[in-house]
Amino acid sequence: MIKQYLLSPGPTAVPERVLLRMAQPMIHHRTPQFSAIFAETKQMLEEVFQTKNDALMLASSGSGAMEASVVNLCSPGDTIIYVNGGKFGERWGKIAAKHGVRAVEIKVEWGSAVSVDAVAAALADHPEAKGVFVQASETSTTTEHPIREIAALTAKMDGCVTVVDAITALGVIDMPMDDWGLDVVISGSQKAFMLPPGLAMIACSEKYWKLAESASCSTFYFDLATERKSQMKGKDTTAWTPAASLIIGLNEVLKMMREEGMAALYARHALLAKATRAGLTALGMKLVSSAPATSATGAFVPEGVDGAAFVKYLRDTMGVTFAGGQDHLKGKIVRVAHLGYYDLFDIITAISAIEIALDRFGAEVTMGAGVAAAQRVLADRFDKV
Amino acid sequence: MIKQYLLSPGPTAVPERVLLRMAQPMIHHRTPQFSAIFAETKQMLEEVFQTKNDALMLASSGSGAMEASVVNLCSPGDTIIYVNGGKFGERWGKIAAKHGVRAVEIKVEWGSAVSVDAVAAALADHPEAKGVFVQASETSTTTEHPIREIAALTAKMDGCVTVVDAITALGVIDMPMDDWGLDVVISGSQKAFMLPPGLAMIACSEKYWKLAESASCSTFYFDLATERKSQMKGKDTTAWTPAASLIIGLNEVLKMMREEGMAALYARHALLAKATRAGLTALGMKLVSSAPATSATGAFVPEGVDGAAFVKYLRDTMGVTFAGGQDHLKGKIVRVAHLGYYDLFDIITAISAIEIALDRFGAEVTMGAGVAAAQRVLADRFDKV
Repeated sequence: MIKQYLLSPGPTAVPERVLLRMAQPMIHHRTPQFSAIFAETKQMLEEVFQTKNDALMLASSGSGAMEASVVNLCSPGDTIIYVNGGKFGERWGKIAAKHGVRAVEIKVEWGSAVSVDAVAAALADHPEAKGVFVQASETSTTTEHPIREIAALTAKMDGCVTVVDAITALGVIDMPMDDWGLDVVISGSQKAFMLPPGLAMIACSEKYWKLAESASCSTFYFDLATERKSQMKGKDTTAWTPAASLIIGLNEVLKMMREEGMAALYARHALLAKATRAGLTALGMKLVSSAPATSATGAFVPEGVDGAAFVKYLRDTMGVTFAGGQDHLKGKIVRVAHLGYYDLFDIITAISAIEIALDRFGAEVTMGAGVAAAQRVLADRFDKV
Repeated sequence: MIKQYLLSPGPTAVPERVLLRMAQPMIHHRTPQFSAIFAETKQMLEEVFQTKNDALMLASSGSGAMEASVVNLCSPGDTIIYVNGGKFGERWGKIAAKHGVRAVEIKVEWGSAVSVDAVAAALADHPEAKGVFVQASETSTTTEHPIREIAALTAKMDGCVTVVDAITALGVIDMPMDDWGLDVVISGSQKAFMLPPGLAMIACSEKYWKLAESASCSTFYFDLATERKSQMKGKDTTAWTPAASLIIGLNEVLKMMREEGMAALYARHALLAKATRAGLTALGMKLVSSAPATSATGAFVPEGVDGAAFVKYLRDTMGVTFAGGQDHLKGKIVRVAHLGYYDLFDIITAISAIEIALDRFGAEVTMGAGVAAAQRVLADRFDKV
């Protein structure tokens, strides 16, 4: 037996009580029983979004909600601005292209956060832009972008909104949608929400809904106005058949989040991220990001080590699943997740596994150095006796 | 305690072994482990579709796959023909309208099957039509349409295909996709596939793929050519994050179907449908459909009984969930499902519950008459000793 550990930035581990809740007998989704669960779930979800807007649930992956955010805002020929600093940023451009929307790219070096000045300059060059599309946390490079500052720029414009892919940020960092003036926040089930994939969430501001009225891009399944009418308080249902078992699982997840308390949850994530950075750095590994995310940490494997073989070895021989790199980072990095159902000793497991694997790959490593560095950070969790 | 029975035509009951399979710890979907499950599942799924084409899996409800079948075939301004004999038939027209596709409606009285002549006439009037869109089983009226005969009409045309929504037909009736020349077959997880909702399946013929090359309707998430490239044999993955737990559940479901054998599965469904019709008819209830489906049976409640209250009473007081009627059938009918994880005594439960409820609602009913009629049919399942 090789015990298995899932430490990738999505899917993340699903808590046992959530797995068991979802394993209960199926109920019909067009019943008061389901509507009661739906309404309660939606309300708790809106607390995590920190919004008075509707947090809508879609039966799709996060990419579906990303497309929804574009097509419900734009008409063919419209202009949007997007931050491309990784695989997910790049996707905005691909979605826009499919719908005949002109996408102005702000190219950012992988591992760097976008500069707010670059966004301001793009907005000055393109006052016609309907929105700035950006990741709160770009998972491919484990980098956080300054979404609050970007939202402050579009807040001054009548016809332009800030759309945030927070798929690996919501429920990880404190990002109050309404306070920060984020117009759209998107998330997905298989990240901080600790569920299997297949459920996306999206909340939109009144400013967005207003602009959406004149949008003419074509969609049937992702028509958010139709979903909003169905999902609003008192209706408590969905336009199309919902991913019911995931919504029931989400109900359980949100209760767990409430029990922990959001402040404690954000502090836990921040501590785990800090400890991971300390551990990997102590092993001589260079971080991928200069604005490292709270959700996951990417680090370069040492020169001479084949990163793809390294990640495969960890998974197949040692039972520990991390993510590797994508595109030009393929074979060069390892990404350690710490969002969702993770705590201190998951980080110790992660760092220890990487230490052992580095040793097995013939890299120079002081056994225990990474774990010790992580421990020094994690010890802060407990008061001295 | 009121023991609960789910006898609605979607969601249907999920077998215990499938619930438990899905409750296993999460695995990553970009791994050889998941790809092996994916490849095996897809192959078994194609056996149920009875096709050499790729059966693609989408993280969406069936409505998403319906939209996919339209947008990947058509360009704005194209014409399609659709059969509207109920709520789901109507949906083709709504999807087409969203994408600027001209939809020629063949209106069919609710509860009737479309006449093949009417389809032939529409095709003669509209030789420019890219496709005929039809339900194999229209769930809202529990009616089967003659899909084989319709496919034979479009088979003679170079530029027109038959697109079949088989969401409540695939895995219920024997409908060999390739033998019958069906160009597109669509299904969903929460019907005969005995899973929670959130996974759609779609297979397309070479003729469809050829026509799809020139389609220019806009979609990103439902771009089937992109999905096909990812899901093809040897690639064994999905373009976007898959509904992984449902695919793992589907793997278990398809093994159950193999164990039963498809001939036995079709025979079981046919027998349950026949027994349900016999039971309801013996209670003096009139069937909704003159071409009744094998998936579910709709019947009118007696004059003077409020059908909505009747279905609610069965669910809330007696613990048995059926579906009621939609639109102008609202409050007039009850729909009993018999697709998926159902067997003899589920039908006895259904008929018995309706008998008792009829009695409680003051309708004239001979206690046991419906059950006896159903039993006479179901007894055929067992050889005489």
